[in-house]
Amino acid sequence: MDTLSRLEQTIAQRRAADPAESYVASLHAKGLPQIARKLGEEGVEAAVAVLSGSAEELTGEAADILFHLLVALDARGIGFDRVLEELDRRDGISGIAEKASRSA
Amino acid sequence: MDTLSRLEQTIAQRRAADPAESYVASLHAKGLPQIARKLGEEGVEAAVAVLSGSAEELTGEAADILFHLLVALDARGIGFDRVLEELDRRDGISGIAEKASRSA
Amino acid sequence: MDTLSRLEQTIAQRRAADPAESYVASLHAKGLPQIARKLGEEGVEAAVAVLSGSAEELTGEAADILFHLLVALDARGIGFDRVLEELDRRDGISGIAEKASRSA
Amino acid sequence: MDTLSRLEQTIAQRRAADPAESYVASLHAKGLPQIARKLGEEGVEAAVAVLSGSAEELTGEAADILFHLLVALDARGIGFDRVLEELDRRDGISGIAEKASRSA
Repeated sequence: MDTLSRLEQTIAQRRAADPAESYVASLHAKGLPQIARKLGEEGVEAAVAVLSGSAEELTGEAADILFHLLVALDARGIGFDRVLEELDRRDGISGIAEKASRSA
Repeated sequence: MDTLSRLEQTIAQRRAADPAESYVASLHAKGLPQIARKLGEEGVEAAVAVLSGSAEELTGEAADILFHLLVALDARGIGFDRVLEELDRRDGISGIAEKASRSA
Repeated sequence: MDTLSRLEQTIAQRRAADPAESYVASLHAKGLPQIARKLGEEGVEAAVAVLSGSAEELTGEAADILFHLLVALDARGIGFDRVLEELDRRDGISGIAEKASRSA
Repeated sequence: MDTLSRLEQTIAQRRAADPAESYVASLHAKGLPQIARKLGEEGVEAAVAVLSGSAEELTGEAADILFHLLVALDARGIGFDRVLEELDRRDGISGIAEKASRSA
């Protein structure tokens, strides 16, 4: 599962690259609203793929979400390890119960 | 980064639990549209948090996305390792370029 | 406010047009998942514009939502008047209160 | 189609009401990010209903989108008539073609 750590590093390195040559840099050049927008859109695309897509399509949309989530976290200066720590914190029966209690 | 593997296992175990006691089971009881809907909504919430939330709020929303993404993948029988393989496949300069070329 | 009635008619007429010449027909050619996806994406874009866009940008995103909502309703065979009736039904103090009571 | 004009007025009147008694006022009390979030979430819910909901459910989701779109426009000080003017501007063959040309 080193993949996400490596991708996180790659994204941090690309941030300051030439927007004409790096997709990450092109998102930064357009600004935080574009980064937020892409993340939200990938959520919609994944939701549609859950219902109507092939396994291959949903796999691709899931990869898109992870990629844009890492771009967004990096843009806000939040390490992915903080998100994993939050998931660890919630884990276990109590964590799931907590989630249930605060959800509609 | 074992966190996501462990969470994936937890989610698979909860799938068949009592919906009154497990959030994962309650999502399954409501069906795939509800699982898709929650994933899409978490994408929206994360997008809003990117623009307007504190680091803590965005961290929480990122955790929510990952959790509901794993629930959705599990519901469709797709292992998270397939998503990581897809990210590996795209990785490197060529991968980023590919992403750029197919995006608006 | 005849604008939306006229747009609804235009959309119904374009449905069966040449996808190469009509955006509505091109959405139909791609199928219902694409129509659903565009509607969800416009919701995300409008949400981002509420927070970060100019009045002109939000106006454009609002128009995009209405357009794609009418396309989706038409694709499912639901007249826009049914949506207006539903809003009328909810209207008034009781309607707003009802909405409040079923919302998180 | 006076429904939307009336709803727009109702929303403007409720804006400054007691958040404990008005859903519109409660959204304003939580701030613009909550208004943006609800709009985006309704987009997701409508997208899921397009694919998996009954006609009645999609009608309800469409009403929810319109309601929250009007709340968002009002919160940003944009009259609904500006959105209708934008749709009029785009209308006709040329308008649809324009939309097609700027879409992915």
